[in-house]
Amino acid sequence: MYNDSSSRIVARLKERIAASAPGSRLPATRALVAEFQASPVTVQKALQTLTTQGLIESRPGVGTFVRAVRTVRPADYGWQSAALGSPRAPLPAVSSMMRTVSNDAIAFHSGYPDAELLPERLIRAALTRAARGDAALSRPPVAGLPDLQSWFARELGAATPTGINPPDPSDVIVLPGSQSGLSSIISALVGSGQPLLIESPTYWGALLAARQAGVRLIPIPSGPEGPDLMALARAFAESGARMFYAQPHYANPTGSQWSAQRGEEVLEVVRANGAFLVEDDWAHDFGINTTPVPIAARDDSGHVIYLRSLTKSISPAIRIAAVIARGPARERILADRGAESMYVSGLLQAAALDVVTQPGWQTHVRSLRHQLRSRRDLLVSSLQEHAPEAHLEQIPKGGLNLWLRLPDGTDVERLSQDCERAGVIIADGTEWFPAEPAGPYIRLNYSGPNPGAFPEGARILGQALRMNRH
Amino acid sequence: MYNDSSSRIVARLKERIAASAPGSRLPATRALVAEFQASPVTVQKALQTLTTQGLIESRPGVGTFVRAVRTVRPADYGWQSAALGSPRAPLPAVSSMMRTVSNDAIAFHSGYPDAELLPERLIRAALTRAARGDAALSRPPVAGLPDLQSWFARELGAATPTGINPPDPSDVIVLPGSQSGLSSIISALVGSGQPLLIESPTYWGALLAARQAGVRLIPIPSGPEGPDLMALARAFAESGARMFYAQPHYANPTGSQWSAQRGEEVLEVVRANGAFLVEDDWAHDFGINTTPVPIAARDDSGHVIYLRSLTKSISPAIRIAAVIARGPARERILADRGAESMYVSGLLQAAALDVVTQPGWQTHVRSLRHQLRSRRDLLVSSLQEHAPEAHLEQIPKGGLNLWLRLPDGTDVERLSQDCERAGVIIADGTEWFPAEPAGPYIRLNYSGPNPGAFPEGARILGQALRMNRH
Repeated sequence: MYNDSSSRIVARLKERIAASAPGSRLPATRALVAEFQASPVTVQKALQTLTTQGLIESRPGVGTFVRAVRTVRPADYGWQSAALGSPRAPLPAVSSMMRTVSNDAIAFHSGYPDAELLPERLIRAALTRAARGDAALSRPPVAGLPDLQSWFARELGAATPTGINPPDPSDVIVLPGSQSGLSSIISALVGSGQPLLIESPTYWGALLAARQAGVRLIPIPSGPEGPDLMALARAFAESGARMFYAQPHYANPTGSQWSAQRGEEVLEVVRANGAFLVEDDWAHDFGINTTPVPIAARDDSGHVIYLRSLTKSISPAIRIAAVIARGPARERILADRGAESMYVSGLLQAAALDVVTQPGWQTHVRSLRHQLRSRRDLLVSSLQEHAPEAHLEQIPKGGLNLWLRLPDGTDVERLSQDCERAGVIIADGTEWFPAEPAGPYIRLNYSGPNPGAFPEGARILGQALRMNRH
Repeated sequence: MYNDSSSRIVARLKERIAASAPGSRLPATRALVAEFQASPVTVQKALQTLTTQGLIESRPGVGTFVRAVRTVRPADYGWQSAALGSPRAPLPAVSSMMRTVSNDAIAFHSGYPDAELLPERLIRAALTRAARGDAALSRPPVAGLPDLQSWFARELGAATPTGINPPDPSDVIVLPGSQSGLSSIISALVGSGQPLLIESPTYWGALLAARQAGVRLIPIPSGPEGPDLMALARAFAESGARMFYAQPHYANPTGSQWSAQRGEEVLEVVRANGAFLVEDDWAHDFGINTTPVPIAARDDSGHVIYLRSLTKSISPAIRIAAVIARGPARERILADRGAESMYVSGLLQAAALDVVTQPGWQTHVRSLRHQLRSRRDLLVSSLQEHAPEAHLEQIPKGGLNLWLRLPDGTDVERLSQDCERAGVIIADGTEWFPAEPAGPYIRLNYSGPNPGAFPEGARILGQALRMNRH
């Protein structure tokens, strides 16, 4: 607590010390007692504080002096541990998928497409135009630039069948990246201690947002066909959960795409339980063999909360995504966004809208899909040749990743280290599981730099795998 | 729960309906019972669901048909209320300070400087350069672009006296605006249900972030000299709080600036309680009569968490701020930022760094201070002449706002409405109080558009004030 005498004396003396030459002598304790009208104990306590802070030193029998050389003390933040206590839910400081690695490495770990897959010309032109326009100096509404809201609503509305109300632009909330949307959806609609159903394995960023919000995760096994319906229904009934988070199209990491029928069935289960389906359509622009039709297009009853990101398809610098939700859920998400960041840079919003409304955008997306196909097929065949031990459960019809089951007993941590020493960065599958991993898995992203090195990367992986079993 | 039979029948029939012409007849219930190997009750339930969803209609005695005209039903999201429950802490959807108003209005309400006060030439040049550079296509580290971290560290380090360790660039976390920093600091370091000491009145955005985090607010009365030290010490002792949020320089809304001695005294109280001081240096570039010296510069023991924003001094489109913190506190804030948004657009970071490192930046800041002085003085004299009933407790030495105490009994809500009808937008002081307002207050921002209209705005306010008392 604030001891008026002691803390005030410290403060006053500090000012005096700051104005004094090093080596100056402080008044004797008795004089200080008189000056500050405090007890000797209080004055001693103040002098002790100043000594601990390295500002004065006492020479016994001589007096107290302003320190000649103020040595820089090594930092000790131990007191913070008492102030902070144990973390409610420890979060990793930086996920391994976000690591920046040497340019020479064969990088299969990152979730972001390499710059050569981005519409560079469109991006630079859009940003240059935005730099000249109103958006460079103004503040957009909290929910986003109206024209960008309309664009997101139209994209989803285009897939909406007759008889279903398409989303309204006002249902759209523009986000500074879909991670912020996940964070707000989970913390504003589920909340600390409450249950959240989630596919297993699933996107580590969703797991991170869930841990941040302190929700109780309930894993729903999800295979090549999507989630196990009976397990989903059982989990809803047993937990009383009101939300299921999923990636129905080219799920990260498995690459699974639900059939239209499975989507409809999941939606029925969700509706029957008075719950929300969070449809994270992260790979909407990354279809290879198919084109994703959002489940959200078939719902106008507010049961589906739809997340669409442009960050990975436009540029990591134009960090723009949107959530489309209806009813009170939308209001709560918007209020949470307002409290978290008030609004999203209008410059980035204007640039994103510019890119996606250029004629070149559709051309780019088509060409991107072709490139992803070649990259995927090259990595698949390289693995078949050089690392046949790594079992690919399915060839994904879109997305950016291969999900590989390794032989039983593989030490994935050691494998990652061995690969890294040989210049190949892979992602340990463990980070995609809400609970214990179902087995030894790794994820390889085929949208990284230098696809020419995929065969070499597969060779090194194969070698490390064979070494791992000895 | 998922009723395998009923929900699955609904899903299957929906596909069939989607492929059927309107008016087509569905098989009889008996046929459906056989087809789906389900009970008649289950089939009836499925048909009922489809009817409710407007997809089929039954004509008694004739059969069940695909609806000819799928009318758009009015939305009813009532089920969401059951799913969501009462909000833990209701948040306002959009604060009144964020409102966009007509260009004709005399706008005293907004917290953002008008575009004419922004360094337009520097902004457009910086954004154009950033659009051409690497930052347009790449992803920066989670904590920020290293050069921008260094710049923020140097700014604070320049004010650090000898004998104190200046901040290291790695102590800096770049933010997409200071609101995001407030949100992470409060939720990661205080946490739901825990106490947080906060000046009263204080910045409404901090109150919003605190409500979002669900913390328990403990108001510390703060006047022209800063917070009441005895009240602060008592509140720490009584509540066990470990954090005090404050704006020591040109506090929003009061304009108060703490003396160096008061800063030192507050810091001593905070240290004595093993606590954190969150120093929100929001108006660092808006000194008029003084230049703020951050309290954080005098602390290297991790007790001060320093927030510095560039959003208001550069541009609302270049939404960049930073938090400087040391020790475990910094790690927890960084982890929270990672979970919330992973990283901040490198394009905005590069543009912000470009602006503040141009020679024109210092010239701009000097000119800005002159303009703020003229605007402040014009508004003060206009009020003295036309609205002498509005008592200005102090002429702020910096910042963007005047804080006015109105006569006892003033109905501030009615006053705001009366002013707005006459084309003047003022901000009701109530939003700046963590608890009940200490009296009728309004805040007038003098950095809005068209300062030439300040006398007219003051005249309208004076008139509305006089009417208010009858």
